[in-house]
Amino acid sequence: MTAPAPEQTVSPADIARARVAVGDVARQTPVLPSQTLSDVTGAAVVLKAENLQRTGSFKIRGALAKLAALGERCARGVTAGSAGNHAWACAQAARSRGVRCEVFMPVEAPLSKVEGCRALGAHVHMGGASVDECVAHARAHAEEAGMAFVHPFDDPDVIAGQGTLGLELLDDVPDLAKIVVPVGGGGLSSGVAIAVKSARPDVEVVGVQVDSVAAFPESLRRGEPVGMESSLTIADGIAVKRPGDLTLRLVRQWLDDVVVVPEDDVAEAIVLCMEKAKLVVEGAGAVGVAALLGGQTPAAATGTTCVILSGGNVDAGLLATVARRHETEAGRRLVFFTRVPDRPGSLARLLSLVGETGANLIHVEHLREGIDLHVRETAVQITLETRGREHADEVLRCVRDAGYVPDLVGG
Amino acid sequence: MTAPAPEQTVSPADIARARVAVGDVARQTPVLPSQTLSDVTGAAVVLKAENLQRTGSFKIRGALAKLAALGERCARGVTAGSAGNHAWACAQAARSRGVRCEVFMPVEAPLSKVEGCRALGAHVHMGGASVDECVAHARAHAEEAGMAFVHPFDDPDVIAGQGTLGLELLDDVPDLAKIVVPVGGGGLSSGVAIAVKSARPDVEVVGVQVDSVAAFPESLRRGEPVGMESSLTIADGIAVKRPGDLTLRLVRQWLDDVVVVPEDDVAEAIVLCMEKAKLVVEGAGAVGVAALLGGQTPAAATGTTCVILSGGNVDAGLLATVARRHETEAGRRLVFFTRVPDRPGSLARLLSLVGETGANLIHVEHLREGIDLHVRETAVQITLETRGREHADEVLRCVRDAGYVPDLVGG
Repeated sequence: MTAPAPEQTVSPADIARARVAVGDVARQTPVLPSQTLSDVTGAAVVLKAENLQRTGSFKIRGALAKLAALGERCARGVTAGSAGNHAWACAQAARSRGVRCEVFMPVEAPLSKVEGCRALGAHVHMGGASVDECVAHARAHAEEAGMAFVHPFDDPDVIAGQGTLGLELLDDVPDLAKIVVPVGGGGLSSGVAIAVKSARPDVEVVGVQVDSVAAFPESLRRGEPVGMESSLTIADGIAVKRPGDLTLRLVRQWLDDVVVVPEDDVAEAIVLCMEKAKLVVEGAGAVGVAALLGGQTPAAATGTTCVILSGGNVDAGLLATVARRHETEAGRRLVFFTRVPDRPGSLARLLSLVGETGANLIHVEHLREGIDLHVRETAVQITLETRGREHADEVLRCVRDAGYVPDLVGG
Repeated sequence: MTAPAPEQTVSPADIARARVAVGDVARQTPVLPSQTLSDVTGAAVVLKAENLQRTGSFKIRGALAKLAALGERCARGVTAGSAGNHAWACAQAARSRGVRCEVFMPVEAPLSKVEGCRALGAHVHMGGASVDECVAHARAHAEEAGMAFVHPFDDPDVIAGQGTLGLELLDDVPDLAKIVVPVGGGGLSSGVAIAVKSARPDVEVVGVQVDSVAAFPESLRRGEPVGMESSLTIADGIAVKRPGDLTLRLVRQWLDDVVVVPEDDVAEAIVLCMEKAKLVVEGAGAVGVAALLGGQTPAAATGTTCVILSGGNVDAGLLATVARRHETEAGRRLVFFTRVPDRPGSLARLLSLVGETGANLIHVEHLREGIDLHVRETAVQITLETRGREHADEVLRCVRDAGYVPDLVGG
């Protein structure tokens, strides 16, 4: 009979060692003051811009730490399964250390990430219907081929690597009072909490999940990992269906709280990061901003609150979509529908009227079918760019004053 | 007879003094390595992320330096004329120093900037058909009211303030070999060149203008400021129609070259900054990136090349537009037109076919008029999101194999 294995854990010494291991490849990302979040919360708020990290997310820290811990045990290479950030980070870390890397990515992985991995010399296996399936393939392949498997979060070496971000906060934010950190598998949040609270137990660490895939709150209540249904979310980087055994234990032990933000608020947080902080942040990376804005967790009353922007890997297409939606909500994009007499010159008259208000015409569409119109009427849907809510209201007023009856569309 | 006034100039000592004056309000913005630009140029390229500056651009440096130089002479307040960054910077600087500020902004100024100035306590005069008119109003109002006028660039104190950015580069980039800097009025570029080349004459400094409003090359050739026609440009922050007398002299004396990039390349540079560097940069701020990508100026063969991202004040709407256009160009947005038999189920069959390829349907439009169609045919325009060029080609192949004849729209 053998004694049970001692419980795995992660110590401050592990994180200090990891810092040496990641130091020359990972960047010490900047901490930037946020005037907007400070104004909104009435407190001092700074952003840890980990979206500016190599490969665009914190994952490179864990991958480098794992490779260092493996040492000779990864002589035949490493495998990973992931749709994005973790695969990319492993590919970069392996290249930096001259180690072979094979990644398993799902069919729907963005081509940009697949090509990013290939450009770093990784062998990419496409296929697998889900990330879970890819992780299983990666694990099986490692076993067969005598390679080392790198788990995205439930691994003490990976967690120690992510914790190095916490050490940078201790250095760069002297009056650190609170940390707001995204939670997916729990590797980043637990690593950071261990690094920071071991030195400064008074610092509060609050994790944030998105409501569409929030497995931690229920898992913490039950004391064991609870699996969730998969769900589409703008915060796909933290859409982890089941906490790890190790990370759940560490999150329970070290974090003060895990809160949940609504999906829609994440899109607005992405836009705020773009417009105000001038930073491109992916959905998963922006949940902390959403939580401060939405009040799911307050900023610290004294001292500095640091929001970790954990990654910035987001396609231009998604940015375009959230930016466009925001424009509409802010009144800078005005879409209305109105009837006009079906006579030559009617539309031109309406459009000149609109033009005189200074609004910029984006699109006009004639609608004739499925609408209750007099035979002498036609209907148009007009899309305008305005200078904001006030200006949009003024445009509508002018249109009404001229006898039209505009109906707002999607506003 | 009085002797002619000595020629104005800006010395390294002026810039050192300005650094003290701006130090507590302006941020020392980070210098970030750019893997993408380094890969493209085969050289070491870093980005000076001045888009992360307070008020979103370098202008705060010059405004603070001017206020310090004015001292008691701005006791009755300052005025400025600008459509954006300079007005905002003056409002912030004046607020920080407890000085009254009045800004003159053109009618078409973005509401976000108008409100930004108001939120900082500035009195905003709307009106003026152009920036030039606003500058004239600001100057006249300063004279009447006994206030001090702050020119956006043609002023030695303002130039010294902008030069403080150069001192940060000397500190942060030990092997600095070349600087690529946007040129509008010439305040930033000449200030930075004086700061850097006074200490390190071997560092090359190249200015960049956008072809739609590039007054410097001709002015440098003729040896006197030459005025340009006003023109719409995505780089509106550097759309200065006429160089200043002082800045033209300093640019001529201190810069190695001023190159010009095409308008379209600026939009692609904005997207590259978003997608790769995770930074939101306005058009004027991205011209240096465009110049390195387009080869208008090469990166230094040895040592580090630093591209100054001078500002990040850009509306979400414009970001959405450039991102969307980029998606189309990268094949991630596919728009095609095809005829389908005008029978129940025809469109459904085409859409299932497309769906099976994994492309995401964004929009379908029926087109019946103005197209040469058989009476039994209808035409549709289909907008899809794909995983990239290769995937888009595969979608088109499938559509063709099924007997349709797709015509690309705007591709």
